[in-house]
Amino acid sequence: MELLYKDSARIDESALKETVQQLNEYREYLNTVLSKNDYDAPECSVNLPVDQQLIGLVKETQKKKISKKLKYMVVIGIGGSSLGTKAVYDAVYGFTDAIDCKRFPRLIFLETVDPEYLRRFKNFLEFEVSKPEEILLNIISKSGTTTETVANAEIIIEALGKKFSEEQIDERIVVTTDENSKLWNVAKLKNLTLLPIPKEVGGRYSVMSPVGLFPLAATGIDIESLCEGAATMRKNCIENELELNPALISAALLFLNAKAGKTINDNFFFAPQLESLGKWYRQLMGESIGKEKNLRDETVNAGITPTVSIGSTDLHSVGQLYLGGPLDKFTTFIWARNQEDPITLPKKLMMPGLVENLQNSSAQGLMEAILEGTKLAYAKKELPFMEIIMPEISAFALGEYLQFKMIEMMYLGKLMDVNTFDQPNVELYKIETRKILKAKKTA
Amino acid sequence: MELLYKDSARIDESALKETVQQLNEYREYLNTVLSKNDYDAPECSVNLPVDQQLIGLVKETQKKKISKKLKYMVVIGIGGSSLGTKAVYDAVYGFTDAIDCKRFPRLIFLETVDPEYLRRFKNFLEFEVSKPEEILLNIISKSGTTTETVANAEIIIEALGKKFSEEQIDERIVVTTDENSKLWNVAKLKNLTLLPIPKEVGGRYSVMSPVGLFPLAATGIDIESLCEGAATMRKNCIENELELNPALISAALLFLNAKAGKTINDNFFFAPQLESLGKWYRQLMGESIGKEKNLRDETVNAGITPTVSIGSTDLHSVGQLYLGGPLDKFTTFIWARNQEDPITLPKKLMMPGLVENLQNSSAQGLMEAILEGTKLAYAKKELPFMEIIMPEISAFALGEYLQFKMIEMMYLGKLMDVNTFDQPNVELYKIETRKILKAKKTA
Repeated sequence: MELLYKDSARIDESALKETVQQLNEYREYLNTVLSKNDYDAPECSVNLPVDQQLIGLVKETQKKKISKKLKYMVVIGIGGSSLGTKAVYDAVYGFTDAIDCKRFPRLIFLETVDPEYLRRFKNFLEFEVSKPEEILLNIISKSGTTTETVANAEIIIEALGKKFSEEQIDERIVVTTDENSKLWNVAKLKNLTLLPIPKEVGGRYSVMSPVGLFPLAATGIDIESLCEGAATMRKNCIENELELNPALISAALLFLNAKAGKTINDNFFFAPQLESLGKWYRQLMGESIGKEKNLRDETVNAGITPTVSIGSTDLHSVGQLYLGGPLDKFTTFIWARNQEDPITLPKKLMMPGLVENLQNSSAQGLMEAILEGTKLAYAKKELPFMEIIMPEISAFALGEYLQFKMIEMMYLGKLMDVNTFDQPNVELYKIETRKILKAKKTA
Repeated sequence: MELLYKDSARIDESALKETVQQLNEYREYLNTVLSKNDYDAPECSVNLPVDQQLIGLVKETQKKKISKKLKYMVVIGIGGSSLGTKAVYDAVYGFTDAIDCKRFPRLIFLETVDPEYLRRFKNFLEFEVSKPEEILLNIISKSGTTTETVANAEIIIEALGKKFSEEQIDERIVVTTDENSKLWNVAKLKNLTLLPIPKEVGGRYSVMSPVGLFPLAATGIDIESLCEGAATMRKNCIENELELNPALISAALLFLNAKAGKTINDNFFFAPQLESLGKWYRQLMGESIGKEKNLRDETVNAGITPTVSIGSTDLHSVGQLYLGGPLDKFTTFIWARNQEDPITLPKKLMMPGLVENLQNSSAQGLMEAILEGTKLAYAKKELPFMEIIMPEISAFALGEYLQFKMIEMMYLGKLMDVNTFDQPNVELYKIETRKILKAKKTA
């Protein structure tokens, strides 16, 4: 992975170094978290990719539960229980699922409780699933009490009950949750297969735990390679030398640009298959640093609003806003090198004369020219940006990226003086919702 | 459609009235655009939904080109040439395409020129399309010279050439473009079927032109109902009386909130099938009011940044940011009433005791309770919002919504003193890209 930012990020080198300097102590602390290699600190998610025991448990469960007959892996989870898995799955397979109906096993996500989606999903179960071994339900909830997840699980299990016996269904469920959560205990009583989440690992930092690893392994993604990518990156991200440590640089640039009024961070992916990776980051940044209070309990309403854009598509949508509109954005361009490029335009065009210099171009060449043109336009308008180049879109490279961004966020939270690992304001709507549900019941 | 905003939008009623007052002249002007019923003014897109001749032409082309054998309608277009179609298609069918592989005809969009997507798409053509009448290519480009669209068309037509004769392929192409554009003339020479876009109708306002109507009709969506919804709404949106005119209210609220520092407009859809409708609006708002210069050519860097969120999913992602983070957002909650609700939770839960008051709830009831809880939390935090309630998710209701938002944007552009219909800064990156492509050729 490469990170390019000099000149383009429009941050003075000395300001950058000074900011990074502030992180020195925390960087050393992260170093000790890595060395201790346990799950005590809030930052402990960095130890997941080298936890051979946990990875081994996932692979064992995979052996027990997944056969070549598996067609549909249903992830019942929301937020941190689905976004990381979706990021990796969509990047590798999922972004073409609608035109690739015969590739199995497929991952299907049940996140919210939309009645129309559920109606169609029940239809799908009725007509497309004929044997228990064709389907696996992975019910994922860290707390074990997530309303949408529990509701979806109940609805789907009841629907499957019309086809299979209770015993058959129970055999096709894997529950991923905190050890000794309510869900853990209920599942244990019912003798369901369980996978644990280390208690200190927060939802948005859990992609390298069984939360992400099990469903990804089930669909044939090389989770060892994913973890290797993450393990490589976590070492880089505790390096003292600035140029070796992309997380330090990136956190400092985000912080300094936010201080200069660039309070939106647009993640502009020139690869449509990475849209879900952007949505994963949206939670990571939104929840980690979007905070009403700082660490001294002062009201600060801190945060940077993450947005996700897709190149070149969104140049034809929000490109005008980005190039002409408010100067409130710091952009991260992300793209992947491609080793091979089998897609070229015909030598003899069917409709010549419409676009200059097109014949014999390649799709990759066009994308690169458009990205290059976009960066030049941003530079001309003095719009700040950095650029992340992935070596390719693979399990390894995605592991690197995910780990890079999680450690970047820890540094950024530190700079912003907020608790990077909690989400206290979310309780607000949950409390109100529980009141409403209770009132409905007693009505 | 209902628009609720009192108290919640946190705008003084007198400030609202005063702002609306400023729009009186423009509202009367819009009235004359409607009465003239032609395509002369930049606002003329409002006349599309009542243009029986153009709608008739679409239906005629549908009769000629679409049979029961059609399986795949491929929309080759980007930006305004795809987003409106995708908004309606995804809302009605597309959001479950990946779990509903046997429903035909399906719409497939080719927007950017991603090599991996193209590689898989060519595979798909090879294995899933066996007869010419199973596929139709709708090549859509207003200017007729959109790089991505022309490139994609060339690549796909060449790929089809391995299966079908040139004559067979030509018969399966419909080209939608401005009359007498370069593409129009090339297509005419080749005797391809053509559909016109009225010249003054801008891309982001073109969903009710053949751009949107033809592919939507091809997939079985009731375009007459869509246009009726739009026709009903365009009348409301020129009403003098404030309470009858949601576009006036909404534009004024967006404007006043932006003036008060709420420069992000989050479109929070409590219906996952409306995500593409949000992306359509993202272009509409981004391109229409994201402007470097105002009408007096002064540099203003005007604009509001549109974001799209999905309830309840994103409460588990950016909910913390929205409730605790920077006070820079004005939220539009959008949801649809459902007449029927077939999805209820089991009477006897499989995993009882995890979430209170769950048994016997309905999916719709849960969604409503979560939305209600969210609105209460926003109100407690004094976060401004308005609420749009669609009567249902149908062609008619979507037509209403699209038209409402297009006229809202015209009013908003007027208030912001910008040209609502151009996108001059987009040229910046295009010029640079053309230079790069030229240099590559001569290299």
